[in-house]
Amino acid sequence: MFKANEVHTGRATRLPVLLVFDVNETLSDMAPLSARFEEVGASGQLAGTWFAGLLRDGFALAVGRENPPFASLAAEGLRMQLGMAAIDRDLEEAVDHIMAGFSALRVHPDVPEGLRGLTDLGVRMVTLTNGSTTIAQHLLTEAGVEDCFESFLSVEQAGVWKPAREAYAYALDHCGVEAADAMLVAAHPWDTDGARRAGLASAWVNRAGGRYPAYFLASDLDVPSLVDLAQRLRERSP
Amino acid sequence: MFKANEVHTGRATRLPVLLVFDVNETLSDMAPLSARFEEVGASGQLAGTWFAGLLRDGFALAVGRENPPFASLAAEGLRMQLGMAAIDRDLEEAVDHIMAGFSALRVHPDVPEGLRGLTDLGVRMVTLTNGSTTIAQHLLTEAGVEDCFESFLSVEQAGVWKPAREAYAYALDHCGVEAADAMLVAAHPWDTDGARRAGLASAWVNRAGGRYPAYFLASDLDVPSLVDLAQRLRERSP
Repeated sequence: MFKANEVHTGRATRLPVLLVFDVNETLSDMAPLSARFEEVGASGQLAGTWFAGLLRDGFALAVGRENPPFASLAAEGLRMQLGMAAIDRDLEEAVDHIMAGFSALRVHPDVPEGLRGLTDLGVRMVTLTNGSTTIAQHLLTEAGVEDCFESFLSVEQAGVWKPAREAYAYALDHCGVEAADAMLVAAHPWDTDGARRAGLASAWVNRAGGRYPAYFLASDLDVPSLVDLAQRLRERSP
Repeated sequence: MFKANEVHTGRATRLPVLLVFDVNETLSDMAPLSARFEEVGASGQLAGTWFAGLLRDGFALAVGRENPPFASLAAEGLRMQLGMAAIDRDLEEAVDHIMAGFSALRVHPDVPEGLRGLTDLGVRMVTLTNGSTTIAQHLLTEAGVEDCFESFLSVEQAGVWKPAREAYAYALDHCGVEAADAMLVAAHPWDTDGARRAGLASAWVNRAGGRYPAYFLASDLDVPSLVDLAQRLRERSP
């Protein structure tokens, strides 16, 4: 079994100065997008294939340091998937219906209490998404927790998608924080792995009780919710 | 709509000296892997999500120029997917059953005739897979067309997965052929895109009549089968 090499630093025991949050699936509950596939007559299971394929193609372009807009890949990926499926309306109408779902997403139930708990610890917080800052800001405003974040950042400004090292470095530069003082919080192991390679600590938010793949660098913390993350970091508070 | 920039070269009208074939899905019919998901009690639709996720995570590592073994990602990806699914046996038995399916895959029906037609044109042919050369060689030996290929190459030797430019460059170096004299043949748009960025021509094998994503560099040829590829290239033959 191939196992990613471990990199040891002192980052894993201190309270981070800065938490960098992924947005899609980490803060937002994407389950309603599956329902939208069903609403246009397709299988809800296509949602998982579509989202994995969207990231696959975005990462393929990131390998060559291309930086495409997330929404373009999302919509075009829907055209590919739905063009082969049985749907009950015009293709572009179906694509629009599912894309509109992004703006209608809500945060997971644990997010507001978790963010308030983290705010109480005095850590700085930003978002860093492969998507658009508009979606992130709208999501967090709707949840009433926009004030927890000092910035809403996107790889659109970084020049390359996560998990490229440059994407995390952009967020650190923006905030004036060293990698060793920052922790990436994400529901995706490819993101916690990328952050570790860029020198940040990482917390994996594992709400579904899934398995962390052995081929990625281990996360420093595994938590079932942001409430638990706040609790774990509180134990590090001076 | 984000559209990939076009790169114009003279490569698109000459008969290539070398054809570089992708293996998984391009030469092999992977549909029996869906059946194996069903044989262990899971949904056959999981196969698409699993394979997209496997490439997603492999590409995430390729962004940082890591080079993990394909089989490790495939098996660990199965553990993640099947660990959350209802299956009718022990997890490792289910993983082994599906992984064994790779060695049992057969070529698509159009492959033998197509390869013979291409051989008749006098073009050189190699395979270049993100997987193992053993699987590729076994597949083509079973189909009785191993002799069409001068080499079975893998990114294991290249040091990084396709679609990194270095992976295609490795195959070209191995064969002593310039990029402008080579054409990549693949069923995956991320692969034809990567080949174009590395300076090769590309042929997209689109057996299912799917849509080519606008965010990738267009392929030079779109063909529904390798028989059609041989016909199209025959028209370029002097």
